[in-house]
Amino acid sequence: MPVYKAPLDEINFVLNDVLNAQSLTQLPGYQDATPDLIQSVLEEAAKLCENELQPLNRSGHEEGCHYENGVVRTPKGFKQAYDKYVEGGWQGLSFDPEYGGQGLPHTIGFVMEELMCSANMAFAMYPGLTHGAMNALHAHASEELKQRYLPKMASGEWSGTMCLTEPHCGTDLGLMKTKAVPQEDGSFKITGTKIFISAGEHDLTKNIIHLVLAKIPDGPAGIKGVSLFVVPKFLPTEDGEPGMRNGVMCGSIEHKMGINANATCVMNFDDATGWLVGEPHKGMRAMFTMMNAARLGVGMQGLGIGVVAYQNALAYAKDRIQGRALSGAKNPDKAADPIIVHPDVRKNLLQAKAFTEGARVLGYWVGMMIDMYEKHPDAKVRQEAEDFVALITPVVKAYFTDMGYEVATNSQQMYGGHGYIREWGMEQFVRDARIAMIYEGANAIQALDLVGRKMPQNMGRLLRRFFHPMQAELEQSMSEAGLVEFAGPLYKAFGKLQQATAVVAQKGMARPDEAGAASTDYLRIFGLVSLGWMWLKMVKVAQAKLAEGGDGKADFYDAKVKTARFFMEKMLPEVEFRFRSLMSGGKSMMDMSVEQF
Amino acid sequence: MPVYKAPLDEINFVLNDVLNAQSLTQLPGYQDATPDLIQSVLEEAAKLCENELQPLNRSGHEEGCHYENGVVRTPKGFKQAYDKYVEGGWQGLSFDPEYGGQGLPHTIGFVMEELMCSANMAFAMYPGLTHGAMNALHAHASEELKQRYLPKMASGEWSGTMCLTEPHCGTDLGLMKTKAVPQEDGSFKITGTKIFISAGEHDLTKNIIHLVLAKIPDGPAGIKGVSLFVVPKFLPTEDGEPGMRNGVMCGSIEHKMGINANATCVMNFDDATGWLVGEPHKGMRAMFTMMNAARLGVGMQGLGIGVVAYQNALAYAKDRIQGRALSGAKNPDKAADPIIVHPDVRKNLLQAKAFTEGARVLGYWVGMMIDMYEKHPDAKVRQEAEDFVALITPVVKAYFTDMGYEVATNSQQMYGGHGYIREWGMEQFVRDARIAMIYEGANAIQALDLVGRKMPQNMGRLLRRFFHPMQAELEQSMSEAGLVEFAGPLYKAFGKLQQATAVVAQKGMARPDEAGAASTDYLRIFGLVSLGWMWLKMVKVAQAKLAEGGDGKADFYDAKVKTARFFMEKMLPEVEFRFRSLMSGGKSMMDMSVEQF
Repeated sequence: MPVYKAPLDEINFVLNDVLNAQSLTQLPGYQDATPDLIQSVLEEAAKLCENELQPLNRSGHEEGCHYENGVVRTPKGFKQAYDKYVEGGWQGLSFDPEYGGQGLPHTIGFVMEELMCSANMAFAMYPGLTHGAMNALHAHASEELKQRYLPKMASGEWSGTMCLTEPHCGTDLGLMKTKAVPQEDGSFKITGTKIFISAGEHDLTKNIIHLVLAKIPDGPAGIKGVSLFVVPKFLPTEDGEPGMRNGVMCGSIEHKMGINANATCVMNFDDATGWLVGEPHKGMRAMFTMMNAARLGVGMQGLGIGVVAYQNALAYAKDRIQGRALSGAKNPDKAADPIIVHPDVRKNLLQAKAFTEGARVLGYWVGMMIDMYEKHPDAKVRQEAEDFVALITPVVKAYFTDMGYEVATNSQQMYGGHGYIREWGMEQFVRDARIAMIYEGANAIQALDLVGRKMPQNMGRLLRRFFHPMQAELEQSMSEAGLVEFAGPLYKAFGKLQQATAVVAQKGMARPDEAGAASTDYLRIFGLVSLGWMWLKMVKVAQAKLAEGGDGKADFYDAKVKTARFFMEKMLPEVEFRFRSLMSGGKSMMDMSVEQF
Repeated sequence: MPVYKAPLDEINFVLNDVLNAQSLTQLPGYQDATPDLIQSVLEEAAKLCENELQPLNRSGHEEGCHYENGVVRTPKGFKQAYDKYVEGGWQGLSFDPEYGGQGLPHTIGFVMEELMCSANMAFAMYPGLTHGAMNALHAHASEELKQRYLPKMASGEWSGTMCLTEPHCGTDLGLMKTKAVPQEDGSFKITGTKIFISAGEHDLTKNIIHLVLAKIPDGPAGIKGVSLFVVPKFLPTEDGEPGMRNGVMCGSIEHKMGINANATCVMNFDDATGWLVGEPHKGMRAMFTMMNAARLGVGMQGLGIGVVAYQNALAYAKDRIQGRALSGAKNPDKAADPIIVHPDVRKNLLQAKAFTEGARVLGYWVGMMIDMYEKHPDAKVRQEAEDFVALITPVVKAYFTDMGYEVATNSQQMYGGHGYIREWGMEQFVRDARIAMIYEGANAIQALDLVGRKMPQNMGRLLRRFFHPMQAELEQSMSEAGLVEFAGPLYKAFGKLQQATAVVAQKGMARPDEAGAASTDYLRIFGLVSLGWMWLKMVKVAQAKLAEGGDGKADFYDAKVKTARFFMEKMLPEVEFRFRSLMSGGKSMMDMSVEQF
């Protein structure tokens, strides 16, 4: 059976030593978020994840959800675990205290997301969807709607969903058919079918609050005529309890490749009562609030699965006795050596380690930037932080999830035949990780978002939020002898990223297909360079700690330096490949006629 | 539901135009294997695969195999389909006529392997295992054993297995515990447990012939004390019919990530009667006969899955209406454009096309080389062909299966959310493809075989069988203006392969860990360069055909030229990445202490 231990030492290193998260206490409202408080919160989170959620991961995968006549039952133990989650007050962890939240920094929410996805991704999706719905209501709903729904959601008593996709439209939501007909009392009657609704129906909460995209008749055509509605499963009574059943039913649940313990529902709305969130026909704007947060959350799923897959691959590599080291027996008194003696096994482990530890820094950093743009008193700092988050969101979503799948696959590979057997649990990580590349905007859509929206936005202003500080840090590092080994190759890769940016921007202006053709290579380069930057940051801290004697953790810091070296030597050169591919342009893709495929 | 159409036009192009398979008729015994005969055989094969095997692929995945008290039932329809397979005489297609085979070239067997794996990989494994067992018996068993078993196996009435792995030993078979105690009548009593036995027990055939590795007591320790035995489920009577039940039982079947319709069995041998195949303690040699053929077969599974995944991704990309082309609407009278207008969708399709079509040439070429070394009158030609096959086997196994999984994953990705839903069938391709990277020697083991065994063998003689003809073809191509565009980048990549070879050979001699550290990068470079070579061959044929007017198929040949261009521009540059990674050496992997991971 797979194991999981929340990597609190690693997390503390990132928060306290690399990102200086104690600076968050200087933001208004976060005065109490001291390292000590955060440490005790994370210790409780680790207990929940290790003791309650992880033990249900494999059983949930095998059992799946059950559907009967519109009712969905989650796997054995999920309801009890969810109750503990609610008791612990986890749903409101980083939510506005005015509506029942605990008001801790979003950064901590990002850590919690990683832990929960490592322990049980299918479970984590239930509160994750609620979180997204809470954000959208908080940002766009009327005060009345907020008061009615948010406290119940922040406590975890009620859950939420995002209802976007229809059978004939996923990426292209302008094709949507669901209708919202205005009523005299100001409400709307919603009719239509939504598919792929995660956590659309289940037995964990007393009410389920659907955020639904629909078209008000006679509005603008296409995406500009889409509005957002809140549609509860049970209409709240005057005293705020679930009342009459609304006209929304789960028609069936999907049979999927993975995340079996999360109910993926077909939701039928039949004259369901809903209330407009935000302005009419501006639903996409509200939806993007939810979706951007969700995209970052999905990126953290990639990280979370990568972490747990790595932990299990490592345990197996130390334990499995098979063959001999090429350089001579390491265990001469036993029948064979553990497979961790083999270079290629180490290569896979180091790739997993280099990805997950680098991605953790970037992921938490994004969390801190969200805290900055929500709380910082200086508008300029807020703007810069918001720009950075907007820019990096598609990279976090796509690169983290592509790599999460790759790490899960490589970790499974280390188990040989056992990796293919369900009982061992490694195949679940691959199957669960797979969805993260698809939902919340397939990864190719993220790449288009990066080159088509984020790159040109405000004449490249978003890009400068990344390029300028990285340039400065690289220049400073190049002047330090101990850092040149790392900063040197990274500087070259950074140059390639800048060159690629110029080419894509220039070519894409005249011929959008050229930007499209370059997009996935470009995003991958961006991801690799970003991770390299994070490793440079970690090396700097580790070297400084080692110079001071290592604080009793010399081995830990030394491992950081070695892993950074591995990243620069073995992973960063992929930039060269992607750069060449990108520079060759889109002609070889676009020249084929449809019939020639 | 997924579709499959045997790509006979593509296959004929490869056999007749690229590889000149009609030359096989000059080999003794293959006089009748004319293009016409082969064409009619392949048309029948296509019917079997399209009409009988493919329709059972998804239902077999969903239903899986059933186990009760040692008895295994295959999914609904499998027995009927297998009977048709037997009626058609397919099992003996390329087998020795002396033992009931039809004596067609192995090349045709390779084509059949591709078609069957595209249609239904889990089904294809039943006859595939029989095929492997037949080869081992044919090469190593006594005439008496051959007469007893081979005709029944060549007809498909009886099936076969390979019993190698035990719970504590997979890659390292020297650790094996299964014992074979000699009896007075010359037979042996076999006792032990084997796991991961594909097709170990099922209801398709009247008898199952297990080829079992075991140790004769008091033999040499480790791998040098392993012998091969034939152990039938039912002991054949004098008249060759299945008689008394032997002491071999299926203890359970595994629950797996995929290939659900193939029974993966735990086999318990309890004083089972067996007969020695070949010499005592030389079992590994005999096993390698079986395993090398099996490794090529597994490589063809990677190709087969890639082909069917591509076909379905293409169908969806043409059919799915979503969004607009970046360069302006292509379908202005409809609500949206088909997704094949998007550059990145085309990139995924072209990658799948470039891999599968290139791999098909290489795969069939290996089939022809096997025919050469079995049949050619000139010993020198035989030796050269055998060398080539030995060298390229690990590349075909590992590179084809890594790419099969990648193509299946990318093809699934094109379906968006639907790709994750079981009903659509794309997730099965990913799950089935996954095993091919693991079994018959995990892909990292293939890489070690390439750098550790094949590279140094006979002072690099095997490598010269690849390097010399490729060098000659590249030089000749560089002198033709129309080919420089393709041969130029390939020549550079080939140079990198040669340079990498020299470095690995030199460093690996002094420090074997350096060869191990380089192995997977090296194999990948080898795969990419091999595929590039195949594309150069195809371009030459296509250009010549186009120069003659295209023979009514100008579009087909033009697509070959365009796909070759895509390969050189978008896929071959990966060599640059892998080369840099390889050249950085193994230090960054080996420097970490076990505790630092």
